[in-house]
Amino acid sequence: MMPKYVFHYFPIKALGESVRLLLAYGEEGFEDHRIPLEDWPKFKPNTPFGQMPVIEFDGKQYAQSIAIARYLGNKYGLAGDTLEDKLEIDQNVYLINDLRTKAASANYEKDEVIKEQKYKEFSEGVFPDYLERINALIIKNNGYIALGKLTWADFMFAGLFDYLGAMMRMPDLGKRYPALQQVVDRVYSFPSVKAYADAVSA
Amino acid sequence: MMPKYVFHYFPIKALGESVRLLLAYGEEGFEDHRIPLEDWPKFKPNTPFGQMPVIEFDGKQYAQSIAIARYLGNKYGLAGDTLEDKLEIDQNVYLINDLRTKAASANYEKDEVIKEQKYKEFSEGVFPDYLERINALIIKNNGYIALGKLTWADFMFAGLFDYLGAMMRMPDLGKRYPALQQVVDRVYSFPSVKAYADAVSA
Repeated sequence: MMPKYVFHYFPIKALGESVRLLLAYGEEGFEDHRIPLEDWPKFKPNTPFGQMPVIEFDGKQYAQSIAIARYLGNKYGLAGDTLEDKLEIDQNVYLINDLRTKAASANYEKDEVIKEQKYKEFSEGVFPDYLERINALIIKNNGYIALGKLTWADFMFAGLFDYLGAMMRMPDLGKRYPALQQVVDRVYSFPSVKAYADAVSA
Repeated sequence: MMPKYVFHYFPIKALGESVRLLLAYGEEGFEDHRIPLEDWPKFKPNTPFGQMPVIEFDGKQYAQSIAIARYLGNKYGLAGDTLEDKLEIDQNVYLINDLRTKAASANYEKDEVIKEQKYKEFSEGVFPDYLERINALIIKNNGYIALGKLTWADFMFAGLFDYLGAMMRMPDLGKRYPALQQVVDRVYSFPSVKAYADAVSA
C-alpha cells in the first residue's frame, strides 16, 4: 500500500525529526524520504519554497517544519481543545524556536572569529537564560512543554533536542537539565516512535 | 468599559503591529499599551518570557507575536476552514518570517564590518530570492498571502511591511513589488484598521 505521507528532508534530524516523530506516533504510514545533500539541487526546484522539510499528501506539498508539526498535532489530538490552549502551545513552541534561531546564528556563523565571540557571549547569557525559562516551563507544566499534558510541542522539542544540544555545543544538555531530558524520553517511549527511532539507528 | 484586550509592546511597529491591526479589525476593543524602552526593564519581569509583545485577556498573558496573530485570526474567521487551509496559511507566514529573521540578522549585527558584508551578500541573493517567492505567492493567491482570500497572513504581512523594508534597507519595497504593496493597502482599507492607523499617526 502507498503510504499516506511522504516526508522529504536531509538524512539528519535537525528541522525534520519533529515531524518524523509525529508521523511515527500517528501510525498512518509515511515514507521517510531522505535526500542526500548532493541530490538536493536536483530536488529543490520541485519544492514549494526551495526549502526542506516538505511533506506530501493528497497530491499536494507543504513546507515549513513547525507548520507541518502543528498540522499533525491537530490531526492526532495533540493540540489542546480551545483556541486559548492552542495559543499556549504555540507560545511555548516559539520560545523554543527562538533558542534554536539563536543557537543557529552561532553555529552557522561563517567568520570563525565572530563565531567564537558569539559562542562566548551566548554561553554566558542567551543559552542559559532560555534553558532556565524552558526548564521552568516544563516544571510548571508537570513535565510537559504546554498545557500540563502531552501535546505536539513535546514532539517538536524532542525532535529538536539533539540539534539544539549540538548547536549550543552542549552535548550534556539532558544531564544539565533533567526536566528537558524527561520530555524527550517520554516522546521516545511511545512504541511506534521507539520502533521508528530504533529502525533509523539500526 | 474595560477593553477586552490589553496589548503590551514598544511604541513601534516591528513585531507588534500585526497584532494591533488584527485587534483593530476585530473591533472588540483593545488598550494599545505602548511601553517606552526606558520603562521596559521594570515591566519585563511581569511578562511570561521576558519578551514583548504580550497580549492580556481574561486575566492571562500570552507572548509571541505569530502565536497571538494566529489566535486572533482564528477568532475573527481569518484562518481558513480545514486543517489543510491552516497549514497553507502557516507555511506562507513562516516564509515571510524567515525573511524577517534574515533581515534582522543583518540589521542587528553589532560588528559594523560584518554588518555591511551581510547587507552586501543578502541584497544580492537572500533578499531578492525571498521577495520573488513572496511576490509569486501573492500573484498565485489572487492578491493575497494565502488561500486566494483574506486571512490573518495578510495582516501579519501588512504589520511587518515597514519593518521589513527598513531592515532590508529597501524603503521602496512597495514600489519594487506592487503586489506586496497591494496586500498592505487592502488591510489598511478596512475602516476600523484605517481608523486605528490614522489615530496612531495623528
